Amino acid sequence: MASESGKLWGGRFVGAVDPIMEKFNSSITYDRHLWEVDVQGSKAYSRGLEKAGILTKVEMDQILHGLDKVAEEWAQGTFKLNPNDEDIHTANERRLKELIGETAGKLHTGRSRNDQVVTDLRLWMRQNCSTLSALLWELIRTMVDRAEAESDILFPGYTHLQRAQPIRWSHWILSHAVALTRDSERLLEVQKRINVLPLGSGAIAGNPLGVDRKLLQAELNFGAITVNSMDATSERDFVAEFLFWASLCMTHLSRMAEDLILYGTKEFSFVQLSDAYSTGSSLMPQKKNPDSLELIRSKAGRVFGRCAGLLMTLKGLPSTYNKDLQEDKEAVFEVSDTMSAVLQVATGVISTLQIHPENMARALSPDMLATDLAYYLVRKGMPFRQAHEASGKAVFMAETKGVTLNQLSLQELQTISPLFSDDVSHVWDYGHSVEQYAALGGTARSSVDWQIGQVRALLRAQQA
Amino acid sequence: MASESGKLWGGRFVGAVDPIMEKFNSSITYDRHLWEVDVQGSKAYSRGLEKAGILTKVEMDQILHGLDKVAEEWAQGTFKLNPNDEDIHTANERRLKELIGETAGKLHTGRSRNDQVVTDLRLWMRQNCSTLSALLWELIRTMVDRAEAESDILFPGYTHLQRAQPIRWSHWILSHAVALTRDSERLLEVQKRINVLPLGSGAIAGNPLGVDRKLLQAELNFGAITVNSMDATSERDFVAEFLFWASLCMTHLSRMAEDLILYGTKEFSFVQLSDAYSTGSSLMPQKKNPDSLELIRSKAGRVFGRCAGLLMTLKGLPSTYNKDLQEDKEAVFEVSDTMSAVLQVATGVISTLQIHPENMARALSPDMLATDLAYYLVRKGMPFRQAHEASGKAVFMAETKGVTLNQLSLQELQTISPLFSDDVSHVWDYGHSVEQYAALGGTARSSVDWQIGQVRALLRAQQA
Amino acid sequence: MASESGKLWGGRFVGAVDPIMEKFNSSITYDRHLWEVDVQGSKAYSRGLEKAGILTKVEMDQILHGLDKVAEEWAQGTFKLNPNDEDIHTANERRLKELIGETAGKLHTGRSRNDQVVTDLRLWMRQNCSTLSALLWELIRTMVDRAEAESDILFPGYTHLQRAQPIRWSHWILSHAVALTRDSERLLEVQKRINVLPLGSGAIAGNPLGVDRKLLQAELNFGAITVNSMDATSERDFVAEFLFWASLCMTHLSRMAEDLILYGTKEFSFVQLSDAYSTGSSLMPQKKNPDSLELIRSKAGRVFGRCAGLLMTLKGLPSTYNKDLQEDKEAVFEVSDTMSAVLQVATGVISTLQIHPENMARALSPDMLATDLAYYLVRKGMPFRQAHEASGKAVFMAETKGVTLNQLSLQELQTISPLFSDDVSHVWDYGHSVEQYAALGGTARSSVDWQIGQVRALLRAQQA
Amino acid sequence: MASESGKLWGGRFVGAVDPIMEKFNSSITYDRHLWEVDVQGSKAYSRGLEKAGILTKVEMDQILHGLDKVAEEWAQGTFKLNPNDEDIHTANERRLKELIGETAGKLHTGRSRNDQVVTDLRLWMRQNCSTLSALLWELIRTMVDRAEAESDILFPGYTHLQRAQPIRWSHWILSHAVALTRDSERLLEVQKRINVLPLGSGAIAGNPLGVDRKLLQAELNFGAITVNSMDATSERDFVAEFLFWASLCMTHLSRMAEDLILYGTKEFSFVQLSDAYSTGSSLMPQKKNPDSLELIRSKAGRVFGRCAGLLMTLKGLPSTYNKDLQEDKEAVFEVSDTMSAVLQVATGVISTLQIHPENMARALSPDMLATDLAYYLVRKGMPFRQAHEASGKAVFMAETKGVTLNQLSLQELQTISPLFSDDVSHVWDYGHSVEQYAALGGTARSSVDWQIGQVRALLRAQQA
Repeated sequence: MASESGKLWGGRFVGAVDPIMEKFNSSITYDRHLWEVDVQGSKAYSRGLEKAGILTKVEMDQILHGLDKVAEEWAQGTFKLNPNDEDIHTANERRLKELIGETAGKLHTGRSRNDQVVTDLRLWMRQNCSTLSALLWELIRTMVDRAEAESDILFPGYTHLQRAQPIRWSHWILSHAVALTRDSERLLEVQKRINVLPLGSGAIAGNPLGVDRKLLQAELNFGAITVNSMDATSERDFVAEFLFWASLCMTHLSRMAEDLILYGTKEFSFVQLSDAYSTGSSLMPQKKNPDSLELIRSKAGRVFGRCAGLLMTLKGLPSTYNKDLQEDKEAVFEVSDTMSAVLQVATGVISTLQIHPENMARALSPDMLATDLAYYLVRKGMPFRQAHEASGKAVFMAETKGVTLNQLSLQELQTISPLFSDDVSHVWDYGHSVEQYAALGGTARSSVDWQIGQVRALLRAQQA
Repeated sequence: MASESGKLWGGRFVGAVDPIMEKFNSSITYDRHLWEVDVQGSKAYSRGLEKAGILTKVEMDQILHGLDKVAEEWAQGTFKLNPNDEDIHTANERRLKELIGETAGKLHTGRSRNDQVVTDLRLWMRQNCSTLSALLWELIRTMVDRAEAESDILFPGYTHLQRAQPIRWSHWILSHAVALTRDSERLLEVQKRINVLPLGSGAIAGNPLGVDRKLLQAELNFGAITVNSMDATSERDFVAEFLFWASLCMTHLSRMAEDLILYGTKEFSFVQLSDAYSTGSSLMPQKKNPDSLELIRSKAGRVFGRCAGLLMTLKGLPSTYNKDLQEDKEAVFEVSDTMSAVLQVATGVISTLQIHPENMARALSPDMLATDLAYYLVRKGMPFRQAHEASGKAVFMAETKGVTLNQLSLQELQTISPLFSDDVSHVWDYGHSVEQYAALGGTARSSVDWQIGQVRALLRAQQA
Repeated sequence: MASESGKLWGGRFVGAVDPIMEKFNSSITYDRHLWEVDVQGSKAYSRGLEKAGILTKVEMDQILHGLDKVAEEWAQGTFKLNPNDEDIHTANERRLKELIGETAGKLHTGRSRNDQVVTDLRLWMRQNCSTLSALLWELIRTMVDRAEAESDILFPGYTHLQRAQPIRWSHWILSHAVALTRDSERLLEVQKRINVLPLGSGAIAGNPLGVDRKLLQAELNFGAITVNSMDATSERDFVAEFLFWASLCMTHLSRMAEDLILYGTKEFSFVQLSDAYSTGSSLMPQKKNPDSLELIRSKAGRVFGRCAGLLMTLKGLPSTYNKDLQEDKEAVFEVSDTMSAVLQVATGVISTLQIHPENMARALSPDMLATDLAYYLVRKGMPFRQAHEASGKAVFMAETKGVTLNQLSLQELQTISPLFSDDVSHVWDYGHSVEQYAALGGTARSSVDWQIGQVRALLRAQQA
Repeated sequence: MASESGKLWGGRFVGAVDPIMEKFNSSITYDRHLWEVDVQGSKAYSRGLEKAGILTKVEMDQILHGLDKVAEEWAQGTFKLNPNDEDIHTANERRLKELIGETAGKLHTGRSRNDQVVTDLRLWMRQNCSTLSALLWELIRTMVDRAEAESDILFPGYTHLQRAQPIRWSHWILSHAVALTRDSERLLEVQKRINVLPLGSGAIAGNPLGVDRKLLQAELNFGAITVNSMDATSERDFVAEFLFWASLCMTHLSRMAEDLILYGTKEFSFVQLSDAYSTGSSLMPQKKNPDSLELIRSKAGRVFGRCAGLLMTLKGLPSTYNKDLQEDKEAVFEVSDTMSAVLQVATGVISTLQIHPENMARALSPDMLATDLAYYLVRKGMPFRQAHEASGKAVFMAETKGVTLNQLSLQELQTISPLFSDDVSHVWDYGHSVEQYAALGGTARSSVDWQIGQVRALLRAQQA
């Protein structure tokens, strides 16, 4: 049978240390992003230890001062990693010891890597989510500003990508902005659950030194403390929630991107991307491609992949900390970076997009008013189902005669229903059409204004 | 080139109607679950039409009465589907017309399948989420009751599945209960976003008949109305959120199931499932298998699969309603059924589980107190890092001598550190060990009691 | 502490049997689809038992005859399920015992539910994959036939959804057909791995009665036998592979559907769906929606969701059979049904699709020949990078002057490069353009013909 | 309305270039891994251009020589990237031009980034898959060697994690090795589809310069050429297949890791990880954690996440190249690295794992022979269903009397069935038990030897 030292069952040589395993196990290449919050957490913890009588005031000051030095070195780019620094926590504590000596060895009393790492991650994400919130609000505000400025412009609304009814261009912008306000609301909820302090949970059983977790909470400005130490060190709900938040937000942005890619085709010609957000072709001189939008659309896949990956990693894990949880951080860092870029690029795209109102207007056609024609009959007393059928007959008659719907004569319409009279001509006005949709949420100007007001109020409330 | 009527490019014959397409397109096999909410929504809408002057009072009463008849037929199982009833909305309106005649044709005025179907789905999910909430609370309450009753029992806490520190059995129960309280909190948030009325959004542009959406909201008891009609008819955030909620909740339950499967092995022998939740083997007479727990664990995959599927379906869709969205309902129905069964089975498992406290006690071993031994030295003034090392030396010494850690003599310990003295014997008491972890969230009795109080308070707050 | 009989920790009452658990555990509602292969497997196994001396010839004949009766009852719809029939295997054996008495009790000798169920599933999937193969080939053949018939028609090729270069319509059809041939190749590989016999593996340790697995293989016409009994009863690679096969195939079909939805918009107007594959709107009389294509596109999500779900269920499972594996069958049945419908509907769509060659032709524009203009210069000796730049200048000049690229005079072109001469006029012929792309795989007629030949040859080879 | 230059709709300033967009769009940070294959592809293409008469022999030699210089700079680490080098293709061509002047501008003639990038990726993956194949074979070989050396050792086989039947330890090892042989087979199939040349497909329409793609194929040693240029430049099946291959392989490894983590718990104590593959605890001195196995288990999630992400990105994309496809490379690079590390660590773990045969033996218990007891009765003529029941009664009797199954006296057994006689004592021999399972695939020595032979033969065949 295999012995530690000895004979191997084939395979490359493995001594006391397998360098591939070392690298596999190490997280310093990515968790160094946590340097600042790690120092922050350690400073708070040393205050907790002092209050609990584990550190003297002098020792605490020594540690606080040393940690400030560590942070300074990171900030100035002078921190030197050792080959043995497997993670940021080891690295910082190792350096602290070099700076202040044995007292550094008291810092980890009653603390475990398990509660330390998750505290750091929560601190980092709390900060990062605030940044993402601000970027998201900026995008929404840009959209609302634009919707307000361009609310006179009409263009076709589509369902099933078939022309459906005339709508305001602003109504389209707002449809995407409103979706993003839900993301913004959800992000606040995720932040609330991120903002809970696990420090003081130890490895599993809790903290045995009477550390005052309420003090730690106050020091680190958390909204609450975790309730159960086993759960606290091993739950990654807040990571899963964040990744799902990003996935759903990306789904929204992928849909907006899809629309704009379509609207920017030669065939639609409603919009044109700024050069800053397009690229040319290495082969075809005439091409201008909407790379920014395609990248936004594609990132929905990547971001969701991270969410799927984490959930699969979590599924069926036994209780408490298992090394499997180390997968959390790269997912968070990558998705955070992606979201930051996507939100800023989307804002850039929207704020510089050229629109072609004349092409939009040209794309409106009388058959899009067929529903309004039915409503005309409804207003004259015909049940909608019959009116819908009558209007359908008119559409068919126009097609058969090779004319547009509004070119049917009154006589022709009256063969379909005697309820048609002169005033049917009002139906054929697109401006008149949209103004009918004045119920809340509709495409009439009053309703679009109401929508703008609603979104602005929401943003104000969320920022408060 | 292919003509409607004529020549095909190979393939099976296709006339005006392809029966496979009919079936592919039809949703009645599953959306019939919506019969009740569809009637409910239609009743409210007819009231809206009356107020808007589209229906007379008499017509409205006729429709309300007819809809009650339709509902009655469904409730009594006498509703007969026609082959042409492609979905529940068509079926109910068709039947209404049979019952009350042409007036039925007025009900759909200004309404579209697009806003109708999403209103129905929200109504159904609102009701269903209340049911799931109650089932989840019942599970949490069962766990907390049990935790309270069994808080004297100690057993090993594991990290990395290696014995780590002695903890209370109740601390383990609560670790899972606390995770579930987050699910419960999240479900309330999802419900809040479900509880928003889209009716009155039409197909895309809104409602042109001055229907009062605030009235509809009141009639159907929604918490808010949707802001933008294009978004309202095509966003399925609330579905995605629900599916993710279920996925994360299942991840928690899969972890608890994994623990219990392990604890129920011959090797651990901590717990034994009730016969009601086990099954035998078709081949091996001695087997008793934890099928209930394995099924719970496995459903995490299925439920997440539905979430993944929906997000992929949504990704890159163009604006507004596309038929792709029809995928939402089966996912919701299946996941709702699964969650209902899983939560009830989990409650049954927990409430009937036998535990073996003597085996739990036997599994505690002195090496699990090595951390406490280090704390002993810390309390005598040694920095933790040195104490950790000293305790590690004691563990190694015991292993080398083939004794347990607590069998090392004071003399032996003193070769490691002179700080050891007589009172080290107190370290070897498991009951004493757990009581040290008295910081909030820890495994001391006071802290476990606090946890129970916290969870109970939370449940009360959520139910309010 | 909870006792079997007694006190519950809250929650609903649970006796010896929990009806929700019974239902949760039962699989008969879906695994009844396996009735035929279950009988088939049992017949083969009884032959194996006879050869091994466990059954006499008379007993075997009795069992074979009884199983034929069971199958007959299923085929005629007269098989009656008992409430205790938790799965199809139990049901069939129970019925066999009713029909032939105690001898039925010998059939399961040395067999376990574990090897029985996976044998049944493989038999079912083997048959089903043949059916799906045939449907896939039918779709590919329809596409190739159409490509062959319509190869004169030119239309714009797009990259990034921007008009890129003129191509043959057939080239587009073939691009999707070729993707499907890879699916077809992969399905054969999956079938090869499905077609391996696990029967004779027992629950875990193998078969102790000397059953001749090669005989079973021959009886059931499997291509090979499984190598290791533990693996055989618990691996579901063939299920995961099938689900992934379907996911990737759906990805292809989703892309084709997306193209056709776009080509069928008013803005593109290249194609028109047959009425059999479109539906109207409940609100808008003029609408004709591509529901068939949208459903195809959406199913990519659903199918992938099943694949994701199964993989998550499998992840981290301990060795051998765990009840978690019961999740395999519903996934297989649902995805098989979906694929069957999707492939047939896609065939119907393609075979009845109307195209509008005149609109396609109209959508070709001279700027799509800018690359050809660069090649013109390349052929005159200019390095491509310079030619690309020169052609880009011509595009810009034309835009600036408000003319199309082919309206630039020779003099104007010569201000860009003196290499331009009279023969540049040949560049502006779309037919001439496509014929240049004669390298294998290109859009020239010869290459399109070659592609058709390649696909036909592949189909022949695969069917052999 | 927004103009290129002018007013923005809010948001940060955006000039002609948005630096965030630049970074978002750029791929050089990761696609630089392709430097070698990019040079390789360009060299082959320049040979194709020479044969097609686009390059003179002298020009070709100049380019070949220049490309060798470029490669040399990369190999020696002296290649300097410019800020404008957005991807590796641009970088290499830019450098080539610096080295050899304008002739460099001829290299891209008839080639597009679209066919270039996918050729490079296929070349890279072909090489990488060979490496992964070799690593996988090494792991399988290690497992088989170990299985062969340790085939005398018996231990409990589990189903549902409950002790089921005695099996050979080698049988367990082989169950995982056999699963990996399927991965190995699948990888060869994926490699076959990777090994297809797309070069010569241009951007979409093909190559217009008569480049001989068969020559390119021969130069680059591809197994085939792509059939359709539109498909060739935009299909990423080979990427999706590779990611799924990795996902399924990781599922296998996650299951093996799960087993070993369990077998390494104090409670099972069957195996012990080498120190090289374990780590200690920052808090608990006695802990030794199976980090290597936990990381392997967790990577199943990460790898699958990449697969899920790519499929979602592909879903519903329109035809041909879209920038979305840029997501392919990071997924491939990350998953390749992960697989390489995982396979090597798994080999290291298996080759250095200590086993504890005495604990394994101790874990065998007579109740695991209950099935054999039933077979005993079967061999005496009792139908299996009755024998199963009789054996079950014996199990119950032993439990009731508080003895082990083999401690029941013959008299006691005969109260259950008169078929029991003296020779029943043979049943209680674990060595005898496993030897019964001699059918192919079972746990008898002959069958285990056969399995080893099968796997070895397969490895030889695959390597050929």
